[in-house]
Amino acid sequence: MNAEIITTGTELLLGQIIDTNSIYIGKRLAELGIDLYYKTAVGDNVARVKQAISIALDRSDVAIMTGGLGPTVDDITRDAIAEFAGRKLIIDRNTMLKIERYFAGRNIKMPESNKVQAYIPEGALIIENKVGTAPGFIVEHNSKIIIAMPGVPDEMDPMMEKTVMPYLLGKIGGRHMVLKSKVYKVVGMPESLVNEKIEDIFRESRNPTVGVLAHQTEIDIRLTAKAENDERALALIDGLAKKIFERVGDNIYGFDDETLEAKIAALLTNKKLTISTAESCTAGLLSFRLTGISGSSKYFMSGISSYANDAKTGMLGVDKSTIEKFGAVSEECAMEMAKACREKFMTDIGVSITGIAGPDGGTKDKPVGLVYIAIDNKGEVKGFKNIFGGNRDSIRARAAQTALFYLYKMLAG
Amino acid sequence: MNAEIITTGTELLLGQIIDTNSIYIGKRLAELGIDLYYKTAVGDNVARVKQAISIALDRSDVAIMTGGLGPTVDDITRDAIAEFAGRKLIIDRNTMLKIERYFAGRNIKMPESNKVQAYIPEGALIIENKVGTAPGFIVEHNSKIIIAMPGVPDEMDPMMEKTVMPYLLGKIGGRHMVLKSKVYKVVGMPESLVNEKIEDIFRESRNPTVGVLAHQTEIDIRLTAKAENDERALALIDGLAKKIFERVGDNIYGFDDETLEAKIAALLTNKKLTISTAESCTAGLLSFRLTGISGSSKYFMSGISSYANDAKTGMLGVDKSTIEKFGAVSEECAMEMAKACREKFMTDIGVSITGIAGPDGGTKDKPVGLVYIAIDNKGEVKGFKNIFGGNRDSIRARAAQTALFYLYKMLAG
Repeated sequence: MNAEIITTGTELLLGQIIDTNSIYIGKRLAELGIDLYYKTAVGDNVARVKQAISIALDRSDVAIMTGGLGPTVDDITRDAIAEFAGRKLIIDRNTMLKIERYFAGRNIKMPESNKVQAYIPEGALIIENKVGTAPGFIVEHNSKIIIAMPGVPDEMDPMMEKTVMPYLLGKIGGRHMVLKSKVYKVVGMPESLVNEKIEDIFRESRNPTVGVLAHQTEIDIRLTAKAENDERALALIDGLAKKIFERVGDNIYGFDDETLEAKIAALLTNKKLTISTAESCTAGLLSFRLTGISGSSKYFMSGISSYANDAKTGMLGVDKSTIEKFGAVSEECAMEMAKACREKFMTDIGVSITGIAGPDGGTKDKPVGLVYIAIDNKGEVKGFKNIFGGNRDSIRARAAQTALFYLYKMLAG
Repeated sequence: MNAEIITTGTELLLGQIIDTNSIYIGKRLAELGIDLYYKTAVGDNVARVKQAISIALDRSDVAIMTGGLGPTVDDITRDAIAEFAGRKLIIDRNTMLKIERYFAGRNIKMPESNKVQAYIPEGALIIENKVGTAPGFIVEHNSKIIIAMPGVPDEMDPMMEKTVMPYLLGKIGGRHMVLKSKVYKVVGMPESLVNEKIEDIFRESRNPTVGVLAHQTEIDIRLTAKAENDERALALIDGLAKKIFERVGDNIYGFDDETLEAKIAALLTNKKLTISTAESCTAGLLSFRLTGISGSSKYFMSGISSYANDAKTGMLGVDKSTIEKFGAVSEECAMEMAKACREKFMTDIGVSITGIAGPDGGTKDKPVGLVYIAIDNKGEVKGFKNIFGGNRDSIRARAAQTALFYLYKMLAG
């Protein structure tokens, strides 16, 4: 079975948004061992979308489409599919009810235009949308398949996961080769160093293949294996992963969809520990991330963004002389901040960040990117010095990520 | 003249890299007023790339290709173009010399495979590559045009800028039209309501055209005008923008690259006002965003993420009886939080957020998504009730964005 992706939306052609949907879908299809030969982006025009579907189904078994299912007049995907397949658009009662309930629950009068979203090509299979109002659908047509999903990633991802993947798996039966990927996540090491450490593995490995991809705050090492079944593919991956762990394992915190905040949440909950934060240059990003998990009120008590010096000495209680002697951006100040927040908020752990996010405010001795992180673990305080590259956004993101990484290492280790 | 983009590379289909080239090219073509109807991504396979070129030139005047010009065996773009156009691949002496010089200058023996990069379809126009070794080229074939450039953005961008843009400008002559876009940013209104309010404008406008695009925390209304020059295009946009402001202007905070935090920073700085925050469900996202601008220490003093109830009553000083009587998620508690942080941190303004981000913790009376925001402006406190849709991430992002929007309206208005 081979597939192609059609993304619709004039904004994709004008270069105004980045298409992340087709990246996600491409990855998921690869997991099923379904070949993807083409991706096409097309504007909001019925004739051109119809033509794109026609070309796609000429050369592929499945066309997976995203976008153009909203309530506005430039949402023309359902019309294009209905016209192409010679089907009527009919109201789906369940969807209509769901849309009405959605608006009633929010006490908003349903705009007339939203009704459009309940129209589905006759005979189509509904793909439920648990996040938004527009459902997706699957049309089987002359032994080919058209799958339509909304363009909003938060809505599309779970629809792909919950409905489209099982549907496609059912279609391909047991005969296919599977492609499995596992992504190991590296923090606290520049991409070039990761490359240097695993370059020979990278070059020599054919199955699994190795890919390295740098993100703003972490680096992905992706192992992809092809085999006759999942277990065999995963065994190939695990075998190579061992070698990689020998080289960079100290900086790997998890794999695939694991996040530092989720790993930390599990550790804090298991150990029944509580935590508080004191942040200067990140001003709340660390506390925001620590509370990204539902149930975080079990361990996260309070955070303070003590941006101004007065806020550090005032409510937080950092010693004025520490700031006068060493400056607000210093290991000494970071350590006092961690200690102060742990004591003020009466938690087991206190984590602090203080640094220079720039672009202004750097000096020769204290350049932009200099960030001190400290952790007070039940009275034992450790400080860490970092110099991060990048712009203000990157420096702040990397500072919070690195603080989470130190915290994870301490809790896990 | 209309064009389409063909990006080649199996890694694009496996979802391993994000295609930023087509975004860049799309923007540049828009500047020339050249219509782009399709983008296609295709794997490293001669037959499929040839087919993609054939389909593209059937329906468009120009096919702009990126990728597949490197020295490895999966770089097959030059073969596919040569076969499609029935041209021989011949060595370009200047390119060969350049490649030899490149390696000599770096004291590296030239790998044999690099010679491939000097082969160019007969009669092609060379596009010089000042950054890497592989040149691009332009083939004119049956009054259609094929343009091939490398896939590395650092190499492709200047080739587009220096050679392809002037070449295309020459082809369309002085008769070309420019395309200008302006994006107006709407907060605090669902997409369907925006659509309802401007639906007639949306439907009737041909030049400028109107596009609506929903993001996680705001909605873009994009006006795109075609005219003989920039001023005329902008005048057309401004004319229509007036009509749109009459309908939804209350919810528009800016346009193009403007952000709420930058607008707020300018207003606070001008008015010499200081601000502090108290956050529950957003736990620092609001303070993080308020400090996204360099120089924010001028106005932002301190923030507290009072996640636990004890943190609200303890350090922040919310009345225990308020929480007992109305709950931590209530307008009363939000108003007290705003007042308390303004007083504790001695600022002019205090902003608070308290709500239920979910997925757990909702009740019938207080569902997931219920968020109260309050602003204390020099002692005058106002509360706002919101019910946001979406998952935990969306609810937290929308809560912080909406708080910024209320703050902006108060400061601007």
